[in-house]
Amino acid sequence: METAVKTSDAAQPAHALDIATAVQRQQDGSFAGSTSAAYGNMVGPFGGVTAATLLQSVMQHPDRLGEPVALTVNFAGPLADGEFTMIAEPVRTNRSTQHWLIRMLQAGATAATATVVTATRRDTWSATELRFPDVPSAAAIERTPPLERAAWTAQYDMRFVRGGPGADGKWAMDAGAGAEPDSVSQLWIRDEPARTLDFISLAAICDAFYPRLFVRRPKWVPVGTVSLTTYFHADSAALAACGTDALLGCARALNFSNGYFDQTAEVWSAAGQLLATSHQVVYYKE
Amino acid sequence: METAVKTSDAAQPAHALDIATAVQRQQDGSFAGSTSAAYGNMVGPFGGVTAATLLQSVMQHPDRLGEPVALTVNFAGPLADGEFTMIAEPVRTNRSTQHWLIRMLQAGATAATATVVTATRRDTWSATELRFPDVPSAAAIERTPPLERAAWTAQYDMRFVRGGPGADGKWAMDAGAGAEPDSVSQLWIRDEPARTLDFISLAAICDAFYPRLFVRRPKWVPVGTVSLTTYFHADSAALAACGTDALLGCARALNFSNGYFDQTAEVWSAAGQLLATSHQVVYYKE
Repeated sequence: METAVKTSDAAQPAHALDIATAVQRQQDGSFAGSTSAAYGNMVGPFGGVTAATLLQSVMQHPDRLGEPVALTVNFAGPLADGEFTMIAEPVRTNRSTQHWLIRMLQAGATAATATVVTATRRDTWSATELRFPDVPSAAAIERTPPLERAAWTAQYDMRFVRGGPGADGKWAMDAGAGAEPDSVSQLWIRDEPARTLDFISLAAICDAFYPRLFVRRPKWVPVGTVSLTTYFHADSAALAACGTDALLGCARALNFSNGYFDQTAEVWSAAGQLLATSHQVVYYKE
Repeated sequence: METAVKTSDAAQPAHALDIATAVQRQQDGSFAGSTSAAYGNMVGPFGGVTAATLLQSVMQHPDRLGEPVALTVNFAGPLADGEFTMIAEPVRTNRSTQHWLIRMLQAGATAATATVVTATRRDTWSATELRFPDVPSAAAIERTPPLERAAWTAQYDMRFVRGGPGADGKWAMDAGAGAEPDSVSQLWIRDEPARTLDFISLAAICDAFYPRLFVRRPKWVPVGTVSLTTYFHADSAALAACGTDALLGCARALNFSNGYFDQTAEVWSAAGQLLATSHQVVYYKE
């Protein structure tokens, strides 16, 4: 019976996210991977999948201790469509924590770096200080159509409470609308097709908010995340317990200044558990 | 005249922060440094000065391009009092941005890692979305006495609007008080003695908020930052223009869960400019 079940599982086509973040360990201990057209962005791959792939090099590493607590990705240069290599090094292993340095290389150049902290967690006093926002349920909102110019957006089911494209999938700048008073977005989001939540999916979703600049100021200009940090507040069992439910994402910028703006975001389970908080700083051209 | 001025400058005793963050470039390109008793914490050095010292290895590097935009420090293991070495590597240099990996080594082990993004900024459309909080001026508040058990606290002039020790320098747990409804702190803070603001001072101040756990739950337990990320929203000229004025720091935790809590913080100039936003994840024992 067990074999039969496994055969049945294997017969299911792999999810596009699992294909995009697949890594193969090489003889020298490095990992090989390849970008995926399904998660293409306007230029190069969607950064969230790049972040998830960097995390994958730790998740798949035979020496890993515990589960992710912190992930920082620095997008050092453009990642071209095609193959890349990652070197993940556990630079320090303590009793309950482990610190990782990862480099992503393509054609001999560093395309990205990452640091990861993994840890074994213990039950302690716990409290969520932030409140779950007052929003309608995912089922009460229409799905926003993906953006044609960014393939990755079709890999998510996004339902905007506020701060997103209109129901026609058009952004304010395309619809001829004016500036918004703030850069806040709230949306329900899940992988499309549905996929059981894990650290890989969550790491990508933490970068799946449209650039805050586009929410605040309706004008297309070149933008690109330079550094992204995500803190994971839940363990793998809690993530798996979310199943394929949509997550609530909330994002806002605090500051836009001379070519760089920040974004701070929270990702909640539908049941109201704070799963991750995430921060990034983003280049913008003008 | 110029020589005379320099002599006069040199005659001024160096600030304790400059001594603590001093680095010497070695023949092999690495930097040597040493911990400073003035910035000692309960165990080992104050993490903010460790972060500032890691940043110093980039600031003093002959190949640096531009000024800091993002700094992430992972505190990999305990740093003992004494000497350490740092290796700062510019892993990618673009036209206007540069990406750095830094390792801090002590006795052959990795004590900390850091990544830094530096960039040359240009004038663009800018807007601060966060509001400067409604607080009394620094002059209207008494300085809170430093904590005896943490030498570094004597190197700062801290004036708490809320969420700090009492006017007697005692924390709630020492004063026998109960739990607080939230973990929010607001305080005016500057180097003591006064020192003109720069990236080194600001990087340290971003870690100078007491652990959120101690604000929320008045009980002494072992805590330690594992990862710290700071985004700089101002350039060196804007920092220098702050002179020696106190800065307003605001910090809060969003979540405490199974051994790790986060902290998110903002640092403002007295004139109301958002200088830095900073995030960290902190281990706590119970």
